[in-house]
Amino acid sequence: MDIERIEAAATRLTGHVRRTPLLSSPFLDEIAGRRVLVKPECLQHTGSFKYRGARAAVSALPEDVRANGVIAFSSGNHAQGVALAAQQFGVAAVIIMPSDAPRMKIDNTRALGAEVVLYDRSTEDRDAIGAELSNARGLTLIKPFDEPEVIAGQGTCGLEIADQAKALGVTEAEVLVCCGGGGFTSGIALALDAKSPGLRVRPVEPEGFDDVTRSLKSGRIERNAATSGGLCDAIITPQPGAITFPIMQRLCGPGIVVTDDEAQMAMAQAFARLKLVAEPGGAVALAAALYHADEIEGDTVVVTISGGNVDRPVFIAALERFGEG
Amino acid sequence: MDIERIEAAATRLTGHVRRTPLLSSPFLDEIAGRRVLVKPECLQHTGSFKYRGARAAVSALPEDVRANGVIAFSSGNHAQGVALAAQQFGVAAVIIMPSDAPRMKIDNTRALGAEVVLYDRSTEDRDAIGAELSNARGLTLIKPFDEPEVIAGQGTCGLEIADQAKALGVTEAEVLVCCGGGGFTSGIALALDAKSPGLRVRPVEPEGFDDVTRSLKSGRIERNAATSGGLCDAIITPQPGAITFPIMQRLCGPGIVVTDDEAQMAMAQAFARLKLVAEPGGAVALAAALYHADEIEGDTVVVTISGGNVDRPVFIAALERFGEG
Repeated sequence: MDIERIEAAATRLTGHVRRTPLLSSPFLDEIAGRRVLVKPECLQHTGSFKYRGARAAVSALPEDVRANGVIAFSSGNHAQGVALAAQQFGVAAVIIMPSDAPRMKIDNTRALGAEVVLYDRSTEDRDAIGAELSNARGLTLIKPFDEPEVIAGQGTCGLEIADQAKALGVTEAEVLVCCGGGGFTSGIALALDAKSPGLRVRPVEPEGFDDVTRSLKSGRIERNAATSGGLCDAIITPQPGAITFPIMQRLCGPGIVVTDDEAQMAMAQAFARLKLVAEPGGAVALAAALYHADEIEGDTVVVTISGGNVDRPVFIAALERFGEG
Repeated sequence: MDIERIEAAATRLTGHVRRTPLLSSPFLDEIAGRRVLVKPECLQHTGSFKYRGARAAVSALPEDVRANGVIAFSSGNHAQGVALAAQQFGVAAVIIMPSDAPRMKIDNTRALGAEVVLYDRSTEDRDAIGAELSNARGLTLIKPFDEPEVIAGQGTCGLEIADQAKALGVTEAEVLVCCGGGGFTSGIALALDAKSPGLRVRPVEPEGFDDVTRSLKSGRIERNAATSGGLCDAIITPQPGAITFPIMQRLCGPGIVVTDDEAQMAMAQAFARLKLVAEPGGAVALAAALYHADEIEGDTVVVTISGGNVDRPVFIAALERFGEG
């Protein structure tokens, strides 16, 4: 993995991926005790950064391979990204999703033209289901994070952060990234290391699913005890990737772990102060900036809001519990 | 009023006003039956387009006049825009607000450093209160819409729409603008007339407060029967302005009138499809695109979301009544 691959992805994504703005609010600065710059990937096509990596990976396939279609495993955001990318290339997409994935994510994936195959997390083997479909139809697997072209696509968000921070005169800051398997985190870290090395990435995870934080601490890949059940569905993964982990080890600062309550509080702040809809997993980095200020260094912090695909009752619950006014 | 004044405002606003993106969603296109491009001014500083005009007007004042401070009448969005602009110039701002304005708007205006004076709409004369304060302290009145520098500032949003539409190859479209007194509408209309004359502005208003629509139809300034009480507080004004009306007469197509229910339905769509928080008055143009498609011409429509400063219970009510999932 190197910066050339990210720049090549950026070239392929031009005119397709949305360049999201860098937002701010004096009210958030006040809570955080420092300047907070927000990169809202909830405004990306399909409502999350995942479209970047999906389009990068699908566009990198040889044309004859791509023509047979693609397949992906996903609880929802990667699913929508792959579905849209495949639709844009006019090829088939099969998405294998857990039956307890958020309703909006399942519906949207279908609406983007993908064939959705639901499986029961507790009784069925998704890999077996996927292997059978792939073999029968010649589909190419688009992995959610541990895949160089996917990491390169997510890294294009880091190129934008480097540019936008520079335009604001920010050359030293910590960059908080919502972290599941580490594709977004490692992609942004690679881009910033090459383009703006004073910006250092910090992975942020939800309590109970802090595999990356523990792995960075111990120096080897640690697994989560549970692999489902948390509020932050978008970033719950069993363990860091074999490709992403060494990149994070080399380039990232220590992880930060937030509670589900803090994620919901950050959702309420994003509503009130940024006019943005963040999903729980997409709000953990903002939660770290606002409620873990003592774990962060510097007078400016950059945070990603990685996605906004949240079911209505979950969003209303966060506002009712933690909103003001 | 001419394009030079808008361009001069744009120069003064560079580095202060946020260039909001142009968003879209295939789900909205499907409801509308045509391509829908969304200009989200809810992402502007202070959560609405009003900061553009306020900063333009405050920055145009001679320095010695500005130093005495400014005063404004507003139910909330203009208030916040003027408060922030004054704070940035280090001068005093006095804002006269109705006591029934949305709580968030009153709180935010205070938090931005302004002195807020509340009055009772039914028993007190806000003009008398304002005149007394202005005279005593030498404050300059920043009018909410019927003022050339304010119109010029709002027009900078039109310059961005012209640029962004052009980049997408869109040169013919109707541009739906959430319309109160007509400052935003006439400013955008002037900018588009000069920069992209194939983009034609259509004012959009809430039922019961359709003074601009009726005035455009009759050819003379018509008043609303009521001047308060609607859901769309941000765009409820007694009548079109003496400066804004002739501009709208010359450049705009017929007005479109939407119901409060349609505005709430559009808020629910902005939540689900754009991950944006729109206030009721800020959602009327999107409502027109989605639910009044037969009143619109062409295969592409541009809509403004003019603001996102909505109290939590009002937002939750819209999602509960009209959200899906």
